[in-house]
Amino acid sequence: MTGGNTSPHDHLDRYQQFQAYRTRMNARILGASANPDAPPSAHADHASVGATLNMKRFFRLDGACYEDGKLPRKTKELLGLVASMVLRCDDCIAYHIDQCISCGVTDEEFFETFDVALIVGGSIVIPHLRRGVEFLDVARQHTPR
Amino acid sequence: MTGGNTSPHDHLDRYQQFQAYRTRMNARILGASANPDAPPSAHADHASVGATLNMKRFFRLDGACYEDGKLPRKTKELLGLVASMVLRCDDCIAYHIDQCISCGVTDEEFFETFDVALIVGGSIVIPHLRRGVEFLDVARQHTPR
Amino acid sequence: MTGGNTSPHDHLDRYQQFQAYRTRMNARILGASANPDAPPSAHADHASVGATLNMKRFFRLDGACYEDGKLPRKTKELLGLVASMVLRCDDCIAYHIDQCISCGVTDEEFFETFDVALIVGGSIVIPHLRRGVEFLDVARQHTPR
Amino acid sequence: MTGGNTSPHDHLDRYQQFQAYRTRMNARILGASANPDAPPSAHADHASVGATLNMKRFFRLDGACYEDGKLPRKTKELLGLVASMVLRCDDCIAYHIDQCISCGVTDEEFFETFDVALIVGGSIVIPHLRRGVEFLDVARQHTPR
Amino acid sequence: MTGGNTSPHDHLDRYQQFQAYRTRMNARILGASANPDAPPSAHADHASVGATLNMKRFFRLDGACYEDGKLPRKTKELLGLVASMVLRCDDCIAYHIDQCISCGVTDEEFFETFDVALIVGGSIVIPHLRRGVEFLDVARQHTPR
Amino acid sequence: MTGGNTSPHDHLDRYQQFQAYRTRMNARILGASANPDAPPSAHADHASVGATLNMKRFFRLDGACYEDGKLPRKTKELLGLVASMVLRCDDCIAYHIDQCISCGVTDEEFFETFDVALIVGGSIVIPHLRRGVEFLDVARQHTPR
Repeated sequence: MTGGNTSPHDHLDRYQQFQAYRTRMNARILGASANPDAPPSAHADHASVGATLNMKRFFRLDGACYEDGKLPRKTKELLGLVASMVLRCDDCIAYHIDQCISCGVTDEEFFETFDVALIVGGSIVIPHLRRGVEFLDVARQHTPR
Repeated sequence: MTGGNTSPHDHLDRYQQFQAYRTRMNARILGASANPDAPPSAHADHASVGATLNMKRFFRLDGACYEDGKLPRKTKELLGLVASMVLRCDDCIAYHIDQCISCGVTDEEFFETFDVALIVGGSIVIPHLRRGVEFLDVARQHTPR
Repeated sequence: MTGGNTSPHDHLDRYQQFQAYRTRMNARILGASANPDAPPSAHADHASVGATLNMKRFFRLDGACYEDGKLPRKTKELLGLVASMVLRCDDCIAYHIDQCISCGVTDEEFFETFDVALIVGGSIVIPHLRRGVEFLDVARQHTPR
Repeated sequence: MTGGNTSPHDHLDRYQQFQAYRTRMNARILGASANPDAPPSAHADHASVGATLNMKRFFRLDGACYEDGKLPRKTKELLGLVASMVLRCDDCIAYHIDQCISCGVTDEEFFETFDVALIVGGSIVIPHLRRGVEFLDVARQHTPR
Repeated sequence: MTGGNTSPHDHLDRYQQFQAYRTRMNARILGASANPDAPPSAHADHASVGATLNMKRFFRLDGACYEDGKLPRKTKELLGLVASMVLRCDDCIAYHIDQCISCGVTDEEFFETFDVALIVGGSIVIPHLRRGVEFLDVARQHTPR
Repeated sequence: MTGGNTSPHDHLDRYQQFQAYRTRMNARILGASANPDAPPSAHADHASVGATLNMKRFFRLDGACYEDGKLPRKTKELLGLVASMVLRCDDCIAYHIDQCISCGVTDEEFFETFDVALIVGGSIVIPHLRRGVEFLDVARQHTPR
């Protein structure tokens, strides 16, 4: 996208595009290392300024709050999923669906979670539900049950 | 409130006020019965029009989606709580905290759920966290562990 | 509120409180005149700075967009009401309920409008529905049908 | 999208793409029948789990609340449109624009509705207004006045 | 509020109430010390569980991101204020108004910031503007210019 | 898009696409002139109805509130940027990044602004941060420092 009208991700399916874009931009923002004690890394193209120390710390917190605790990671990822749905963020929904799959969430459990999001958030959630289910179907093809 | 400047709830603590107001207004809206097949009941004061059939059905769905299924009710109530926090609705937060207590959610589990809400929803959630924790403390006094 | 712990509105019902607070603060912000070509008026207590010209123009637009046009004012006020409900702003809901009453909106029409807000916006709208219906009942007492 | 990097909708204009995607995903989610009393239908590709009974009921309510009542369907679709605009959901905006066209809403009426959405929701609505007007122009070509 | 129907803050004006409630609940949540390396402190009344380590870290980040950097603290507090206004959080608005006052923000600068919030966020911001201006006027009485 | 399945913008990079689409649709909506005193201009393709007088006035206000005042335009554009980020509108973010660049905002200042948006708005802002940084990098290539 940065160099012109062709995307480097055109040959990928939606699951692969999501992962590739997320990985590329996180590297751009956080540098090669997400370690908040490391200095900001130089970006290949134009030595760009990237994440501040505060931003790196926020990204680390964002990872930490889904780790196993008194509640298991699976429950926390479902919490992240329903929060993303009612706030209507497609990329956040895709991310948490992917994490939920890796925690063993079944389709029945996904749809009961979608129900809560739909009832709490209303019909405005439906377009995001459609894209979420589409993503779920593609992601299942990349992750054998 | 309808009759003048004195609230009928002034002598109640916050937990009792929440329950009393919710019960009173649900009766006003849904009529004596929340049964969607019943005709709209006459309101005592002025025979007001109340909920349509669609509204009654929505209220029923709102209850049904938290019932035990493939996911237990406890997990679904936590989903409802985190959704209410990121959407920043104090009354919804209070309602789901109360339901979570009845499902046996511990304070440690509450605070891990609050963490997800805070990280996903940002510092804008903090004032609602304060009021939610205050409600939790009062509600614990009404519901022996 | 500005002078201490007693509100000048304590003896009023909710409808009167809403109107008195709105009138008082609009006068504080816009000055005695909402005319955008008038200079900012001195505030009685401390000659405060008030609305900019842009802000006065915005307030005027906010009034103008509900006037009769190809759509009648009644329909536009219903649009304002449903928008306020899904955005969950109690004061905006109260304002548009009051305007709708003056346009002759019936309770049946109100509840069908509430239905759309509830289905589009989800259960998170319910607490605002309760307060809206409470306001409607009080406002009806101030405005003979 | 599910099978690789080519979309089955590339040869369609925006109006056709919207309809095709919506129809395809609704069938995936709700099964061949949206009847809530029917069992979940097997999805062609991988016999996926789909909508729960609660989800099907919600979809039915979502349709029912726009039917003619004390307020005509045209007014209710305008309510759905303004709610979708202030909540900033492009697909919901497109859906209600299409429904409004079928109810005979004129361009003048559309723009007065857009005004309310813009004033209530602010400049953040403008990008959705642009895409909504673009959709309206394409949709008009598919539906003779 | 925790002990019954009388608030410990009834004799305070709105500015003092805001500060007292915020201080009390932050102590309840974070413990006597907001130091993330300290163990959760026992709450006086019932030895409650409080903030997790993640929550304490988030609160620290929330403070850190407004400190002087390449942008001065005053600009960052204005950023926090406008963000709070468009997200429509009265307590967040009050907090940032108070911080802005301590940075020397003038009333003219406040109202130009309010303009941006109003135009970006729409008329739905107006009730929050009213309460924000009311808070500003009270806060000015507590902080000599 | 209006004529079929090929976009007139396919050969452009993301910065150019953003500008071209915005220019084209603003002309469609506002007519050749954004002067609110001019009559609605005829649209080339089908003499469409366009913006009302209220809409044109709103667009003018939207421009006016970022002009130099007591706060410099640069600060106001940063306010517009952070408001757009917490409300999560990609096009608004792109617009204000472009305006900030023309005001001389440095990358360090951008990232400190992003920090405030991230902390206030939460992790739900992250996908918009990724697209904003991508846009910033492309926009820098069009605007020599």
